[in-house]
Amino acid sequence: MQCYRTFELNFRGEPPKIGQEVAVDLEAIFTLAGTTTRVKGFHAGDGRYVIRFLPLHAGHCTWRVRGLFEGDGSEECLPAQSEDLSLHDSERKESAALWHVDLSSLHGMVRANGARFAYDDGTPYRPFGTTVYALVHQSQELIDQTIETLTEAPFNKVRMCVFPKHYFANAADPQWFPFERTGGRFDSSRPCYRYWDELERRIGQMRRIGIEVDLILFHPYDRWGFARMSHEECLTYLDYAVRRLAALPNVWWSLANEYDLMTDFEDSWWRDFAAFIGGNDPYHHLLSNHNFVNYWDFDEPNTTHCCVQNGHTGLVRDLIERHGKPVIFDEVGYEGNIIYDWGNLSAFELVDRFWTAFTLGGYCTHGETFEDPDDVLWWARGGELHGESPVRIAFLREVMESLPNDMEPAVGGAFGMPVNELLAMRKSGELPDGVKGTMTEVIMRLDEKRFLDLVQDLRPIQGRSDDDVMVWYLSRQCCVHTEIELPDTRSYDVEVIDAWDMTRTTVLEGVTGKVIVPMLGKEGQAIIATAR
Amino acid sequence: MQCYRTFELNFRGEPPKIGQEVAVDLEAIFTLAGTTTRVKGFHAGDGRYVIRFLPLHAGHCTWRVRGLFEGDGSEECLPAQSEDLSLHDSERKESAALWHVDLSSLHGMVRANGARFAYDDGTPYRPFGTTVYALVHQSQELIDQTIETLTEAPFNKVRMCVFPKHYFANAADPQWFPFERTGGRFDSSRPCYRYWDELERRIGQMRRIGIEVDLILFHPYDRWGFARMSHEECLTYLDYAVRRLAALPNVWWSLANEYDLMTDFEDSWWRDFAAFIGGNDPYHHLLSNHNFVNYWDFDEPNTTHCCVQNGHTGLVRDLIERHGKPVIFDEVGYEGNIIYDWGNLSAFELVDRFWTAFTLGGYCTHGETFEDPDDVLWWARGGELHGESPVRIAFLREVMESLPNDMEPAVGGAFGMPVNELLAMRKSGELPDGVKGTMTEVIMRLDEKRFLDLVQDLRPIQGRSDDDVMVWYLSRQCCVHTEIELPDTRSYDVEVIDAWDMTRTTVLEGVTGKVIVPMLGKEGQAIIATAR
Repeated sequence: MQCYRTFELNFRGEPPKIGQEVAVDLEAIFTLAGTTTRVKGFHAGDGRYVIRFLPLHAGHCTWRVRGLFEGDGSEECLPAQSEDLSLHDSERKESAALWHVDLSSLHGMVRANGARFAYDDGTPYRPFGTTVYALVHQSQELIDQTIETLTEAPFNKVRMCVFPKHYFANAADPQWFPFERTGGRFDSSRPCYRYWDELERRIGQMRRIGIEVDLILFHPYDRWGFARMSHEECLTYLDYAVRRLAALPNVWWSLANEYDLMTDFEDSWWRDFAAFIGGNDPYHHLLSNHNFVNYWDFDEPNTTHCCVQNGHTGLVRDLIERHGKPVIFDEVGYEGNIIYDWGNLSAFELVDRFWTAFTLGGYCTHGETFEDPDDVLWWARGGELHGESPVRIAFLREVMESLPNDMEPAVGGAFGMPVNELLAMRKSGELPDGVKGTMTEVIMRLDEKRFLDLVQDLRPIQGRSDDDVMVWYLSRQCCVHTEIELPDTRSYDVEVIDAWDMTRTTVLEGVTGKVIVPMLGKEGQAIIATAR
Repeated sequence: MQCYRTFELNFRGEPPKIGQEVAVDLEAIFTLAGTTTRVKGFHAGDGRYVIRFLPLHAGHCTWRVRGLFEGDGSEECLPAQSEDLSLHDSERKESAALWHVDLSSLHGMVRANGARFAYDDGTPYRPFGTTVYALVHQSQELIDQTIETLTEAPFNKVRMCVFPKHYFANAADPQWFPFERTGGRFDSSRPCYRYWDELERRIGQMRRIGIEVDLILFHPYDRWGFARMSHEECLTYLDYAVRRLAALPNVWWSLANEYDLMTDFEDSWWRDFAAFIGGNDPYHHLLSNHNFVNYWDFDEPNTTHCCVQNGHTGLVRDLIERHGKPVIFDEVGYEGNIIYDWGNLSAFELVDRFWTAFTLGGYCTHGETFEDPDDVLWWARGGELHGESPVRIAFLREVMESLPNDMEPAVGGAFGMPVNELLAMRKSGELPDGVKGTMTEVIMRLDEKRFLDLVQDLRPIQGRSDDDVMVWYLSRQCCVHTEIELPDTRSYDVEVIDAWDMTRTTVLEGVTGKVIVPMLGKEGQAIIATAR
């Protein structure tokens, strides 16, 4: 037993009866470092029963098994593996190598902490995700190629579905479905063990290359009936998934992709699903729910972060403010050239959305949709990457990882005053004398929608980490000079970054207060000011 | 006397007393082609009095003068000059030459007709404007250079101010102000004749090169007191302006630039100014008012068109629908590289805003703000153009002028149905059976702001001229194929346009109904389908 590594107890017996394959009567109580964890076992097929436990501490661990099998045991849980850490340090410059080691086994599960993420041991985690929605349902050859591509890419999270996908460029039946059929109909009380073995294999492959699996539990793109299950059938499915997958450290629960398009599910079900997982996942993996047009209620208590479909990544600020949780723009459109407007963004546009999100202390997810004669589009099926954004996302990742901390949204100014003061003034309805007859008074008289749209349009894309680091992203502004305001209590070095050409140049040293920064006169510029 | 050419009666007498220089007692009644026009005279300095008349028809004209001078006269009014029209035709390909002849003298004044513009004789006019706000206040050398630049540029409208400008890169006192001073204060009852002579010279220069002058009567960027005049002082100034300039065919009245920033004026004054001009300008020149953040009330009865400051030119559609008048996005930001976000758009971004506006049947105005060691920025002072957008605006103009008519916004579809039906369904609150359980129902449940934002985001940029011509602008979409739907009653040729590389290629011939169009896979693509 080793900290952060899945520990298994295996048993052999009679297979459960048809219809009783999920809720098998088997559980164990593990006691480790003063913590007691109750976990349920599952049937893995052919009378093989498994209980899985994820130790989150080192120390002496004891357990007791009850139900179909009885017994107890104990083992010394070793500290998390640390030998890879030297590699970690010695190859600091080789990002892909650094990024693609088994980080879960080194650092544990990723959890939310305020608006940021960190592994169990406190190591920061910044999601640079991509999507391969239907990865599990592809041929072995394509899956292997996808994994190979990922080891050279900057991505450390993959959104992928449990259920197969029926949609544009995704027409084939998969080799295995999650369930067997009863009377021609897929039956969630009858897991297809071969499917779940394969799914676990993918999750394990991802773990070994440092990638978190944002596992999509439901989605609407369906012709087989998975999007039309009853409430009870859904819970049976979730029961099996949680029993089986919860002890895998790199799993996140994404209740759905576009939950609000699943019109055969009642709205209230999603809270039931969140509560079910919250009550049955002993480790409390990250959990959220992805929208089509209606954001999920990110204040729902089992929801750990905001998972957003929307191209306007400047909205990071509002979501962090409203929910106090990490914000991932998990779908902002894809770099590509297909017929659909969500799938034909320029590489610059996607990179621009990434920089906007990260500057404001949020996160963003990549995807790629170039037309392909065999319909192998990275976005859903994997394969090779063809776009110009990944290398620039890698550069952004290097820049962000070079900073001592992730960003938080800075207040920023609009119309010559800090936006929080502007909003408070608007809310109070009272205008200070100094404001009368100024541009600010004009703004205050606008109707609510115009006012908010304008503030959103004009507010700078600006993040900060206390007074240590401040970042501005200028997006499509082509200025050759810009003005920034630094705290006048400290002295800063100022770098200008070209997000497209991937350059980073120190342009000012030891400056403070309001300064004019010489810029490059093109789109995609950022500024980083670091306190000395 | 010639149709569309300013006709003058000149008189000599005692100069008016100080304080009585504007409202001189002099008027004439002209009768021409069955129409009677009453016009007021003005004092032009040194006891020279002038009555100006703009004949809009050919025929026998008689007049009677009353007031300070009495008398009558008559003259044959010749038809509009037509010899230049041959040049017009023979040089069809040389756009700059075609664009920069004295079009007012050939075709008359520009007027609104529905959501379009046309000269008096019915010749279509499509405003491709630019701004040189402070042109009148520049050195003769710079003015000459500006005029020279304009004769090579695609612009046929210039927004320029009567009053000098006090702002970034515009600090100098002009040589002449519109008024003389009384007790150190500028006095609107005392025109500075030299100033008005210069202003008229600029308007005349513009006329000779086919450019309409969108004359800005007030603006807030002021240190001399022109933005703090009383209501009475304003009307005195307007009285002189209208007496003097109304007979110049290429003048438009722009009540203000950013009227809503003029906080020393009461809101109600703007209606008074519009009504005053409406009541005193015998020819009813085009009139509008330009906003900072709060649109002018374009339904005001003297207002002929929508003059908008806003970068979101996709809003053309809503404005045409709401007001039924032509829509000019007169300020959408400027191509340049200055420190202000309104003045550092990329050329592509500005060209993109132009294509969006024109595709939807609206119009757009250029401006350029590149940093300059002598602070000569085209936007306010003229000089030379440095940007990459003018040549592409010229291309757009050539494309638009090659079409038999200007565009009207097409309804377009979103979420698989025509947007007007979507909006009506939303308004009615009733969902047809076919909609239940579909994506459309999901949209219908959104709150108002999200719903409208989404429809605005997803609606195609699509214009049409009946079933004769249909235009789509794909803006930043990089597709290699797209689907369009053509009326199936006719047969169309389909061209693909590259707005940046300025190419126009026929890709399909004789097609009808739903067709897939092969595209270029880059930003800035348009499609034109023309019925055979």
